[in-house]
Amino acid sequence: MRALLGRTPGLNSAQLEELLAEAGGEAERAAEARIARAVDLPQAARTFLSSPDETAIDSDVAWLEGSGARILLYTDPEYPPLLRESTSAPAVLYVLGSVSALRSPQLAMVGSRSPTPAGRATAREFAAWFARAGLTVTSGLAFGIDSASHEGALAGGGLTVAVLGSGLDRIYPAEHAALAARIVQSGAVVSEFPPRTAPLRPNFPRRDRIISGLSLGTLVVEAARQSGSLITARLAAESGREVFAIPGSIHSPVSRGCHQLIKSGAKLVEEAADVLAELNILVPKEQLTTPPGDTEEAGELDKEYEMLLDALGFEGATIDTLVARTGLRSESVASMLLILELGDRVAALPGGRYARIP
Amino acid sequence: MRALLGRTPGLNSAQLEELLAEAGGEAERAAEARIARAVDLPQAARTFLSSPDETAIDSDVAWLEGSGARILLYTDPEYPPLLRESTSAPAVLYVLGSVSALRSPQLAMVGSRSPTPAGRATAREFAAWFARAGLTVTSGLAFGIDSASHEGALAGGGLTVAVLGSGLDRIYPAEHAALAARIVQSGAVVSEFPPRTAPLRPNFPRRDRIISGLSLGTLVVEAARQSGSLITARLAAESGREVFAIPGSIHSPVSRGCHQLIKSGAKLVEEAADVLAELNILVPKEQLTTPPGDTEEAGELDKEYEMLLDALGFEGATIDTLVARTGLRSESVASMLLILELGDRVAALPGGRYARIP
Repeated sequence: MRALLGRTPGLNSAQLEELLAEAGGEAERAAEARIARAVDLPQAARTFLSSPDETAIDSDVAWLEGSGARILLYTDPEYPPLLRESTSAPAVLYVLGSVSALRSPQLAMVGSRSPTPAGRATAREFAAWFARAGLTVTSGLAFGIDSASHEGALAGGGLTVAVLGSGLDRIYPAEHAALAARIVQSGAVVSEFPPRTAPLRPNFPRRDRIISGLSLGTLVVEAARQSGSLITARLAAESGREVFAIPGSIHSPVSRGCHQLIKSGAKLVEEAADVLAELNILVPKEQLTTPPGDTEEAGELDKEYEMLLDALGFEGATIDTLVARTGLRSESVASMLLILELGDRVAALPGGRYARIP
Repeated sequence: MRALLGRTPGLNSAQLEELLAEAGGEAERAAEARIARAVDLPQAARTFLSSPDETAIDSDVAWLEGSGARILLYTDPEYPPLLRESTSAPAVLYVLGSVSALRSPQLAMVGSRSPTPAGRATAREFAAWFARAGLTVTSGLAFGIDSASHEGALAGGGLTVAVLGSGLDRIYPAEHAALAARIVQSGAVVSEFPPRTAPLRPNFPRRDRIISGLSLGTLVVEAARQSGSLITARLAAESGREVFAIPGSIHSPVSRGCHQLIKSGAKLVEEAADVLAELNILVPKEQLTTPPGDTEEAGELDKEYEMLLDALGFEGATIDTLVARTGLRSESVASMLLILELGDRVAALPGGRYARIP
């Protein structure tokens, strides 16, 4: 009955959680009259649950089975943890491809649909570099910077995640169907919209929210003023995620958005390594064919991670304890722990404690 | 006896002030044995004052009289007030031209001696804009960004100040002697070094200190990493003055220095108006022929470019023809053509003609 929940209009993640708690965790019982009544739901959801559109649901199920797509619920342990933490995680995610790719550390790369040739090349190069560094590149499958970023990540032999503003059976733009198929082989194509949803305009800000929510940070490669990419960046900043922007000529209209972001606090990025340094991400040197700019710094980073793991021990410690033991800033400790957690080297314990995983 | 004080080695502004206080404000008494003894002076200054090089001083006096140059002492009421406030104001300034130009509100514009054509055009355009806005443009008379900035200010009908690392009788580089002569007509050429001082390497950081000290802020147009312009910017920041930098392509070596400055807190500048807004300088709109850029302006610019492209046609035209057809100023036409050329929308043909690229 996941297909039923996926199609329930206006159902948010908190309501889904309540609904499932009421149903004892059994999704198939969520439509029972008693259960739906016990939760405060929007009218549209209530109406739908009381007489679901069985034809649509049957179609969805048939498509899911045929395509191998899965539905992830907000309450599933496999639901991407960073997206769960973000302000407006969708109740349901349709996923084609690897669910674990959604749990990998991700960087959003977004930008203009009409970039300059140099901007497109930069997106490809940076994405390949991030891929080699073990960072998944997340974007929106659009023309321009989005597709160049996905392609770069694939060329770098890494993972990439595409988030759609349409149903997964309606790859948009259709020209990128082959790209989507390549992404699915190792990464994932996801959407909060049920099958057969058309790529309507209002869906795209919601798509952008998922892109920024999945990611540790958002890098805007080229963007005009007042473009959709700036929405993604704003959402990232509001969720406390890092925002990065690449500068360009003051005469280039597609650098204006990036300059605007830098003026309002986004980090100026000249090299892919700048992003990793800022995110405190550990990259084994041999993993990179292009050196990360300042090699000494990367060495330092490694040391900080080792120091943190030593300070942590297998018995666990709180962030405050770790700050006291290592002398690192608490924000650094928090983001380093997140990276280690996503890499399955550290586990979060109840009570705000963290421990090494042997 | 100002010429004597100007030539006294190692004399700083505080010592000059003490010396004159001791001499009851009479510069000609500063060399008296009793007065020099009463002040704590460096040995070189003491030795010089006890037996001054009369030949050199006589030469200086002759040159000063012949050229109309003046010596400003730190204690003079006309000494530029912003420079006086800065951490290391020179004891003495030699001035050719307008002393009052040194007291006008100034913006330092500095940058690479080997800029890109676009960077040079930007320096000219911005300087012209500042000049029209009533801001004096101060720079170092060097090749590249410096001279483009001085020229732009003159083209905009405003004041400009050039600070030298040599004596005022040794304009360096010699190729800029004519430019210096034009600057002197309304602005000023200044130096802390006495006549016949050669443009030695160690003089230039001291020259940079005066450029930043005279100015409300320093704008770096294009600069490589580890270039002299960054010294000027650092000195400005240390004196609590604003630092501005213009971004560029991440692939351009002469944008690296600017990006480094922005990363460490310099204000990113896209339009000349950004600088004035940041300095809180009020400019009557009618004073400006180019409007100070928001979205409407961008529209205006686009219109001018469209008009130019229309006037150009695919058969080509000279700048003079374009000026006649569009009513735009020839400098504007030249810089717009440059931009279009860099964007591969226009090609330069033999004989100073330009044509649209289909």
